[in-house]
Amino acid sequence: MAVVGASGYTGEELVRLLLRHPQAELVAATSRQFAGKSLAEVFPRSAHHSTAKTLKFTDASPEKIAAEAQLVFLALPHGVAVEFAAPLLGAGARVIDLSADFRIKNAETYREFYGHEHGAPNLLADAVYGLPEIYGDKLRDARLVACPGCYPTSILLPTIPLLRKKLIKPASIIANSLSGVSGAGRKAELDYLFVECNESVRPYGVPKHRHLAEIEQELSVAAGDPVTIQFTPHLVPVNRGILTTLYFAPTDIGQDVTQVEAAFRERYANAPFVRLLDDKALPDTKNVTGSNFIEIAWRHDPRTGRLIVMSAEDNLVKGASGQAIQCFNLMCGYEETAGLL
Amino acid sequence: MAVVGASGYTGEELVRLLLRHPQAELVAATSRQFAGKSLAEVFPRSAHHSTAKTLKFTDASPEKIAAEAQLVFLALPHGVAVEFAAPLLGAGARVIDLSADFRIKNAETYREFYGHEHGAPNLLADAVYGLPEIYGDKLRDARLVACPGCYPTSILLPTIPLLRKKLIKPASIIANSLSGVSGAGRKAELDYLFVECNESVRPYGVPKHRHLAEIEQELSVAAGDPVTIQFTPHLVPVNRGILTTLYFAPTDIGQDVTQVEAAFRERYANAPFVRLLDDKALPDTKNVTGSNFIEIAWRHDPRTGRLIVMSAEDNLVKGASGQAIQCFNLMCGYEETAGLL
Amino acid sequence: MAVVGASGYTGEELVRLLLRHPQAELVAATSRQFAGKSLAEVFPRSAHHSTAKTLKFTDASPEKIAAEAQLVFLALPHGVAVEFAAPLLGAGARVIDLSADFRIKNAETYREFYGHEHGAPNLLADAVYGLPEIYGDKLRDARLVACPGCYPTSILLPTIPLLRKKLIKPASIIANSLSGVSGAGRKAELDYLFVECNESVRPYGVPKHRHLAEIEQELSVAAGDPVTIQFTPHLVPVNRGILTTLYFAPTDIGQDVTQVEAAFRERYANAPFVRLLDDKALPDTKNVTGSNFIEIAWRHDPRTGRLIVMSAEDNLVKGASGQAIQCFNLMCGYEETAGLL
Amino acid sequence: MAVVGASGYTGEELVRLLLRHPQAELVAATSRQFAGKSLAEVFPRSAHHSTAKTLKFTDASPEKIAAEAQLVFLALPHGVAVEFAAPLLGAGARVIDLSADFRIKNAETYREFYGHEHGAPNLLADAVYGLPEIYGDKLRDARLVACPGCYPTSILLPTIPLLRKKLIKPASIIANSLSGVSGAGRKAELDYLFVECNESVRPYGVPKHRHLAEIEQELSVAAGDPVTIQFTPHLVPVNRGILTTLYFAPTDIGQDVTQVEAAFRERYANAPFVRLLDDKALPDTKNVTGSNFIEIAWRHDPRTGRLIVMSAEDNLVKGASGQAIQCFNLMCGYEETAGLL
Repeated sequence: MAVVGASGYTGEELVRLLLRHPQAELVAATSRQFAGKSLAEVFPRSAHHSTAKTLKFTDASPEKIAAEAQLVFLALPHGVAVEFAAPLLGAGARVIDLSADFRIKNAETYREFYGHEHGAPNLLADAVYGLPEIYGDKLRDARLVACPGCYPTSILLPTIPLLRKKLIKPASIIANSLSGVSGAGRKAELDYLFVECNESVRPYGVPKHRHLAEIEQELSVAAGDPVTIQFTPHLVPVNRGILTTLYFAPTDIGQDVTQVEAAFRERYANAPFVRLLDDKALPDTKNVTGSNFIEIAWRHDPRTGRLIVMSAEDNLVKGASGQAIQCFNLMCGYEETAGLL
Repeated sequence: MAVVGASGYTGEELVRLLLRHPQAELVAATSRQFAGKSLAEVFPRSAHHSTAKTLKFTDASPEKIAAEAQLVFLALPHGVAVEFAAPLLGAGARVIDLSADFRIKNAETYREFYGHEHGAPNLLADAVYGLPEIYGDKLRDARLVACPGCYPTSILLPTIPLLRKKLIKPASIIANSLSGVSGAGRKAELDYLFVECNESVRPYGVPKHRHLAEIEQELSVAAGDPVTIQFTPHLVPVNRGILTTLYFAPTDIGQDVTQVEAAFRERYANAPFVRLLDDKALPDTKNVTGSNFIEIAWRHDPRTGRLIVMSAEDNLVKGASGQAIQCFNLMCGYEETAGLL
Repeated sequence: MAVVGASGYTGEELVRLLLRHPQAELVAATSRQFAGKSLAEVFPRSAHHSTAKTLKFTDASPEKIAAEAQLVFLALPHGVAVEFAAPLLGAGARVIDLSADFRIKNAETYREFYGHEHGAPNLLADAVYGLPEIYGDKLRDARLVACPGCYPTSILLPTIPLLRKKLIKPASIIANSLSGVSGAGRKAELDYLFVECNESVRPYGVPKHRHLAEIEQELSVAAGDPVTIQFTPHLVPVNRGILTTLYFAPTDIGQDVTQVEAAFRERYANAPFVRLLDDKALPDTKNVTGSNFIEIAWRHDPRTGRLIVMSAEDNLVKGASGQAIQCFNLMCGYEETAGLL
Repeated sequence: MAVVGASGYTGEELVRLLLRHPQAELVAATSRQFAGKSLAEVFPRSAHHSTAKTLKFTDASPEKIAAEAQLVFLALPHGVAVEFAAPLLGAGARVIDLSADFRIKNAETYREFYGHEHGAPNLLADAVYGLPEIYGDKLRDARLVACPGCYPTSILLPTIPLLRKKLIKPASIIANSLSGVSGAGRKAELDYLFVECNESVRPYGVPKHRHLAEIEQELSVAAGDPVTIQFTPHLVPVNRGILTTLYFAPTDIGQDVTQVEAAFRERYANAPFVRLLDDKALPDTKNVTGSNFIEIAWRHDPRTGRLIVMSAEDNLVKGASGQAIQCFNLMCGYEETAGLL
């Protein structure tokens, strides 16, 4: 198993989790920036691990990587991941891509949201969207997995069960999300300096954030009809965590949230990482940071008739690398929670 | 001029601003907890000020305070403020109350939201809601001013102009607010310990926060009809600042936000503390903390048809003590910005 | 194995680590405050664990606890721990105490620093100071272990090897420490509110902090002579982590730090949690938070002749609960790193 | 009055303070990066100020600037400031430089610490070190002022009075400093990203930080003999603030700190920005951020015989821009505190 492009926050978290995984054996890691250095040198938190001490970053080609590993994680920017995926798949490797490159089934939608032509539209049909709670069965045999974005995970898991049961009106969906700064990646940009983010709270990407493409695609599947939603991301001064507050107009359930609870409990009865909170607690990112769990709570407002659903996850774990390993576990026939508890 | 109950964050900010005010002369400050200590001892940030060095906190009665000061600020918990306001007014003092006690015109609504009978319902009709951008004229002659809550200020200023012009549908209003921790006051409670708030993002008070009472009262005045809204507060790890994101369904303005901009520009043409952002910038609490400004921006989403309006303020200044001084300036015939720039 | 007094930050971390430990079986947990609630209810981060779901906090007596568990962790305030330790030991249980009660060998020194008589001075001689890198052999057979304080751990591990080799002058030792706020415990006190700690950096306990008693006791053992040091703790706005900067006058090693490096490498050759940094890196708390590692680096200053040694640890893990489990592993004959990687 | 190079944190703070200054009239501001934009556009916090709305950043030459302003602030990187200072002085302007370029009297020392030849060694003799509490008289007539660094200010003010009175041994001085992240400037570097600094505490620049050159120069003047000190800076996750803890061996004062207090009180009797704390309080950066004050406290440790002196300042105000304005006030014959309270 190999990791390509491991120098960002997502890549570092992926390496950290894989080194602790009881079945995973990391045989290669690539990074143009760190080629020649050991994992231990680049990631001090993993410096004690024997593999981290001996394994060195390389700048290997996809062909070379495919010769060493049967399964490859791509932690690359969108537009770059696609260039590695095609040759890797061609050489027989299975690919788990953490970028946006294979999340959108429709190449035109990809171009609309990402501003350039898709590099391998022929691969889109094969890609499985890596949300294990929804696509668990398809993931077992997948050759190419497109891991969901961090915001989409926090929105889809609390919304899909309600849409499938037709408990909410699709046109009413508003998702208000708050993200920690690691969501912006490890980029040397002024906007993400400590002084610019600390003691600051701000919206961004209003009103059309890229993640809308995959969110609406998956909600449309769940609803059986095209869905368009409102989504506003905000940056808040924490390292990790996404807190999403969802506003829904219920269909005809009135003040009875029993069906809402039933929909969640049924859908997630066997989902080891979904924590449905009882009616006293509300989600808090500090309960899930560093873990692969997502907390979900719901409240009906008798004054407005709306349903409020809230979720909390770690954007780097359940929103990225942890979920990628959850997919990996399913693909390899391991325990779904292996290496993640 | 006197300050009653100055030991919390709001009281400290009020004292700090009053000491810097060119016309204000602070002659008395009360605090049961700090009686006998000088302001300089209790508030290190103001320790250099000559008044802070000499003025000592007392535990004076309302009558005694009224004998010394013609205008009194109350920075007391709700339910306590009312006990001071009545005798102070009776003794001829003008009162600026920063608690919730005189914000709600309807004593039954007060009881519904605050859980106890109002202590002086006969005074409610006289109280002027201290939002200078809306009630500037009434404030000049007010004897009793009820300063708005921090969340209400951040919601009312961006919403009232649109409701008055009937540009938005009242039933569609959703306010999603993020507040710094000073909003919870200076209370020794576990929930507000550093370790409980840092690296944490969480909603609370869902779905019926107390501030709804005054928000809906004032929105109903603006709409000319009863308005019920959705409001979700969240706690984020900053000391100061409220960022509110508002979701509106426009009436029949379509994609044309010219009327929205016009409504804001007209209403706030002479409002020195309202910053209407041009279409490139979005509000950021770090632009307004420590100041009495509120930033407001708006975007129309052609995909959903909704209007998104965002505001940023300092909860302790524009959301509390700064706004109280803005009211004070109007009441005394001073420049509206005196001591606040 | 049982945990007594698990409701603070140290207790929560201890429970979290024990639940993940492959050999540990938690059979009882006590907490006056949370009696009747399950661990899952009280500690949301551990809510998925099957033991956390079923095990309920009790308010059991020491005798009852000793009947259920052969080894008991005490996560109680000093002065209270001693009251549990004596009956537990009397009933045959082994005790790992995380308080200060058994750290000081001399009951008079205890009284000097803690302000009250020691509750069981007869037990002091039996207690083993729980610093596995120094007292590993004694810990294997210990019946009563006194886990070191968070500051002491961060000072002793970088200093003892140098004192033993007589490479530094004992009278020259200055320890300047920076601690995250969890070090203050989970107490509802104004000083530790988010707003009081965020954007604040401050010294405290100058010049005689309680931890000096155990630090000087252990340094004196290492030096073979009484040692008195300078120690200044500071509070910095992070949840976890202690960064200690030590200033030493070397004996006659001149500019040659080879002996310093040799002393560290020899002493910690088999210490799995001590990370000796090469000469390019300096310690950073973010490399060790959440883990049981301590980072140590050293620099000689040719301009002043001084030796600067720096360490970073997580105050709740290596500085408290992780180290307690490291002791537990040695006492039970498990792998020293069991449950801690 | 003009500001050259106003785009960093120091420049922004300087502009903010100058716009509020009752006597200062800002006629020009240069910035290569922002040329053509108004100050209001670049600095949202000052957007309401009339000058900020009308004054546009230019990329003017020193000659052009000197034609418009008689006094020029340079907020440029070291090595660049010198290139502007010479022509400005030649054209008759007075210059207040916030860089390190004119702080070091000895051009060889400059080269040793800054790694390149000084650009105008002939100007060094004329430059006055801009520490008003020490060089107040010289500053009145100064043509070229070299404002001290942020760390030096926090170390010199608490140390110079003691050295002058020969109360401490020069060779014993150890300065342990903690700085907020704005001290690193507004540079797009990975090390200063939010995620790299938040929940991190770390030393850096050990053992020879550049600021040592000016610190030791000024301490040597005070001692009347060459002084070499130990200095360790650390980065802590706050936006602003420096907390310095100083360790001194007293000369022969024994346990009597009366002389220490007397030395401070005498030296700073007329220093409006130095706050000598009484013996109950210790410095806290949150008491001084946003202000030009420095807090100083001292404690004698009878156990070790050492004297501990601690200071807190805002690195961008007293440590940079506020102090520059304090110099400006003296140079222009204004009240020393003008625009700074």
